[in-house]
Amino acid sequence: MQKRQDAQEQTAMFLERCGIQVTDREKQAIEVVDFGLPDYPSSGLQLLTYINTPRYCAKELVLFPRQTCPEHLHPPFNNTPGKQETFRCRWGEVYLFVDDEELTLNTAQGEPVCQPPTGFEQWYTCQRYILLRAGEQYTIKPNTRHWFQAGQRGAVVSEFSSESRDDLDIFTDPSIKRVG
Amino acid sequence: MQKRQDAQEQTAMFLERCGIQVTDREKQAIEVVDFGLPDYPSSGLQLLTYINTPRYCAKELVLFPRQTCPEHLHPPFNNTPGKQETFRCRWGEVYLFVDDEELTLNTAQGEPVCQPPTGFEQWYTCQRYILLRAGEQYTIKPNTRHWFQAGQRGAVVSEFSSESRDDLDIFTDPSIKRVG
Repeated sequence: MQKRQDAQEQTAMFLERCGIQVTDREKQAIEVVDFGLPDYPSSGLQLLTYINTPRYCAKELVLFPRQTCPEHLHPPFNNTPGKQETFRCRWGEVYLFVDDEELTLNTAQGEPVCQPPTGFEQWYTCQRYILLRAGEQYTIKPNTRHWFQAGQRGAVVSEFSSESRDDLDIFTDPSIKRVG
Repeated sequence: MQKRQDAQEQTAMFLERCGIQVTDREKQAIEVVDFGLPDYPSSGLQLLTYINTPRYCAKELVLFPRQTCPEHLHPPFNNTPGKQETFRCRWGEVYLFVDDEELTLNTAQGEPVCQPPTGFEQWYTCQRYILLRAGEQYTIKPNTRHWFQAGQRGAVVSEFSSESRDDLDIFTDPSIKRVG
């Protein structure tokens, strides 16, 4: 529990740092997600959901320095094509890896710009990425594999999307269960 | 045209003040809306659309001090109930008037907390409001009349919603056409 409270407080500090005001009630509702993996905070994500309805959803995502959200996709459900999401970086930098051939390969003169968390490399298959800095955004198509990692200072990212159904997320690592 | 550029620059300053980063291209895409009324900026609104798809929409709304967005509603279309929107105040204060009987009446000891723009009073019928400060939010049901006015310092408001179709908006003042 202490781990969760510390992470919530650190998350609130990241939000405050970039001018995002939240209520005390919201601070306590910040989700600290370890994906059931043993290496949190290396793998992990913190988030605050503002609104989630069948028609739309909005959240703030907070990543600590070099923290990684594991690779997953949002499958079709209820006669929809699956969750579509727009990531808008508000603060810091985020490397967003997506199965999209129009993106850049994960190498700069032979050196990858990001490494998956140690010991979990096999569960990261997307090799193409876009780097988002504050004020930049990218829309991830439904049913498309993606993962993301913060830069050295961490990142705050607004997520605008269709309905969020975390229970349906499919992770490349079959040991991950996002919910429950 | 000068009026539009000045308003865009002022809007960019409001966004910057509350820590919202935008690209140069976005600055030039800021919409300055006078609703075809003669009293801009008393009646008016400035906004930046991040994303608008059939599945969801996200914008920043900027209101100058005491500026008012005229009363309107978002009607059903294409077998949807009409645009539903969540207003989240990021900076300043916004008085949001909505046809919702659970809200407070527009009086404090007999004095209204807001007045519609002078000369246009007849086109403002909602008498109940909620005051949103930074970090507070409210969701407006589809097909429901609403208008809003900033406090003394102005306001920055994030809008999360279903698809935005400004051309369909119905204003109480029949002379207003939102889209040319």
